[in-house]
Amino acid sequence: MTAKRSLKFGAIIHGVGGSNTTWRHPEVLSDASVNFGFYKRQALKAEEGKFDLVFIADGLYITEKSIPHFLNRFEPISILSALAAVTSHIGLVGTLSTSYSDPFTVARQFGSLDQISDGRAGWNVVTSPLEGTAKNYSKSSHPSHPERYRIAAEYLQVTKGLWDSWEDDAFVRDKESGVFFDPSKLHTLNHEGEFFSVQGPLNIARSRQGQPVIFQAGSSEDGKTLAAQEADAVFTGHDTIEDAQAFYKDVKTRAASYGRSSQDIVILPGINPIVGRTEEEAEQKYQEIASLVTIDKALDYLGRFFEHHDFSQYPLDEPFPELNGIGSNSFRSGTDKIKKDAKEQGLSLREVALRAATPRSKFLGTPEQVADKIQEWFETEAADGFIIASELPSGLSDFVELVVPILQERGLYRTDYEHDTLRGNLGVQIPVNRYTAAKKQVVSDLA
Amino acid sequence: MTAKRSLKFGAIIHGVGGSNTTWRHPEVLSDASVNFGFYKRQALKAEEGKFDLVFIADGLYITEKSIPHFLNRFEPISILSALAAVTSHIGLVGTLSTSYSDPFTVARQFGSLDQISDGRAGWNVVTSPLEGTAKNYSKSSHPSHPERYRIAAEYLQVTKGLWDSWEDDAFVRDKESGVFFDPSKLHTLNHEGEFFSVQGPLNIARSRQGQPVIFQAGSSEDGKTLAAQEADAVFTGHDTIEDAQAFYKDVKTRAASYGRSSQDIVILPGINPIVGRTEEEAEQKYQEIASLVTIDKALDYLGRFFEHHDFSQYPLDEPFPELNGIGSNSFRSGTDKIKKDAKEQGLSLREVALRAATPRSKFLGTPEQVADKIQEWFETEAADGFIIASELPSGLSDFVELVVPILQERGLYRTDYEHDTLRGNLGVQIPVNRYTAAKKQVVSDLA
Repeated sequence: MTAKRSLKFGAIIHGVGGSNTTWRHPEVLSDASVNFGFYKRQALKAEEGKFDLVFIADGLYITEKSIPHFLNRFEPISILSALAAVTSHIGLVGTLSTSYSDPFTVARQFGSLDQISDGRAGWNVVTSPLEGTAKNYSKSSHPSHPERYRIAAEYLQVTKGLWDSWEDDAFVRDKESGVFFDPSKLHTLNHEGEFFSVQGPLNIARSRQGQPVIFQAGSSEDGKTLAAQEADAVFTGHDTIEDAQAFYKDVKTRAASYGRSSQDIVILPGINPIVGRTEEEAEQKYQEIASLVTIDKALDYLGRFFEHHDFSQYPLDEPFPELNGIGSNSFRSGTDKIKKDAKEQGLSLREVALRAATPRSKFLGTPEQVADKIQEWFETEAADGFIIASELPSGLSDFVELVVPILQERGLYRTDYEHDTLRGNLGVQIPVNRYTAAKKQVVSDLA
Repeated sequence: MTAKRSLKFGAIIHGVGGSNTTWRHPEVLSDASVNFGFYKRQALKAEEGKFDLVFIADGLYITEKSIPHFLNRFEPISILSALAAVTSHIGLVGTLSTSYSDPFTVARQFGSLDQISDGRAGWNVVTSPLEGTAKNYSKSSHPSHPERYRIAAEYLQVTKGLWDSWEDDAFVRDKESGVFFDPSKLHTLNHEGEFFSVQGPLNIARSRQGQPVIFQAGSSEDGKTLAAQEADAVFTGHDTIEDAQAFYKDVKTRAASYGRSSQDIVILPGINPIVGRTEEEAEQKYQEIASLVTIDKALDYLGRFFEHHDFSQYPLDEPFPELNGIGSNSFRSGTDKIKKDAKEQGLSLREVALRAATPRSKFLGTPEQVADKIQEWFETEAADGFIIASELPSGLSDFVELVVPILQERGLYRTDYEHDTLRGNLGVQIPVNRYTAAKKQVVSDLA
């Protein structure tokens, strides 16, 4: 018997938007990326829609060609902690790189966010795509793609180990006897690995959800393997329902091969729904965004995926240029796909750039049409839910006010929160503390 | 003409308290160190008292001998960011170590806290006293005391440089012309030093207070030098008013030798006021706390300053033991003082331990008596203000409700906030962006 699946939703909050040009739209607050009031309003709107989570993406290297949002934006731990204080049920998920941080600090910061929010923290584990990041972190070079994933795998062992430093009932706090904690329930990790040696214990205990939820967002082979082994949720993106179904099946099958159930890992593609009262109104909203894009901004945007490669050097209307290895140590799965599509569909550089900068939303139309599409993806196992990544802030409120009620009416989506932890709402397991589990195993072996 | 001095106040929020035993007091919430509601109430109480700031201390290494508060507590960036969302005027200052972190990340996190709070962030720069910290951070050894301070000095150059990446008017955000920022006002640091190489630019802009306020808390020679060169505020502690006056004069004189004005650096001793309606009531409150301390807990507490040295091996009522070098690479100024006092005053181990664990407050008495003492320290230049480090939560409310009105009546302390940035309230300079300053200098040289 498995529990009935129900849709999950997250909302990316990303200030002036994920493109080079959306900030120019009349509706956008041009300082939204560093405007706490904006972040708070969007988080509360998502909570009004009973969303599982808000999601804060991140990056550690900019140049003057970076998109506006990347130049000047909140850092995830700080903005999520601030949002924890003004929300009550919604999960708080942020990106943090295992290639440029220390596991003791990161375990603490997410552990602390998890305590502040009383069990609502999530960490999107990334390995940092941009080679230039090394220059901001006193490193001689950016680790290779396979090495980054080896580091990430060990890093997660360390943080998950540190999170279990204290068993859930370690803190006795008996004023009468003077016993603050039970020393037999405090554990020192003593991790010694290829990349890290970390003794522990961690100086923060587990929250009600056991450990922060682990998200993984890379779609490369290494990324899918890490997700299948370690992640509770996957943030992904696909052009077609068939691609999404194949990815969904692939990750769930991999997870099963590591002894996990298919419910232990939730697959959440990012989508940019554009909702209008009529199909024409939705189309018009898309055109308003697309019309802001100029070809030079589109080339800049494309360049970012290829280590800020300068695409202005190529003729615009000839076939997409041969790039050899450029971008292969960066957003690997993204750049492979761009090259493959360009070749297979015979696209010019102009077409590739404009398509990358303003992809036409696959979830565009009336509230019913968008709800139908969501239902189709959900029921055909292309997705367990979605991360709503609206270019415009009103994209989120339109979705919450117009699409969510339809999904609720159809019985596909909660009408109120069933839980107040992120794991509870996502329906993923609360991991039993490893030391508690080991003791129970001993008792059970003796019985 | 210099502006009239006025008192400054901060409040340490430290959960179950800074001792081994205060958590047993009937008034203390025994989970206070991980209770966000408690932190929020204390911050709002300090804001009601028009305090300049709340202060969150920190540490990166625990053993089972650590005091209860250290075992399981919030991490500073996360708890301060959460408090930013529920306060409006009070400064948010936290400890973060330059020995076990990356300047790019730390510059971002404090920069982001500064933006979320709209100019209220402060960073207490420490170098980590505990040798064991290295074991949590994949390091073969803890850097020596002088090396830690060399690292800290370079680290501050890097973070201050990164904070100036964007000039204050860099973000044009002109929707009409499509100009988001002025590239001539974006600066790449390109720092190459002994310990760090950091390119930049930082992906967050300065707040209204220019840069987060820099606190320094070490009282060793290295600490005082760093403070005099780089800090806006010093968190210190002294047994006598004479010691405090000497320290005050020393740091202000050193600051002047680096070309700074004495108003550029604010000296704030930490005190633990115990206020009663009568002197007897105050004394009784102190005895309630002191009576919770057992000699074995006092020995543990003392041991912490000496790298968790086990003092239970020595006879209790003989002179304080000879420790040779133990503790010299840790809390240097603290351990030197303990050894010196023990020798000069012929104290036994028992006396040293109990005195360390429950020092009798120098600011104990009726509201008028405590206000008198504060006025004396302030007017004789022993302090510019104080960090209130009450062992009991009610120590802060007593101070705010009973002592603050007297100081306001005497015209020594604000009756409302004059500013809404931390620099504004502390009366320390807003640092002009270095690149803007350099351009102005060129213009002025040409004129």
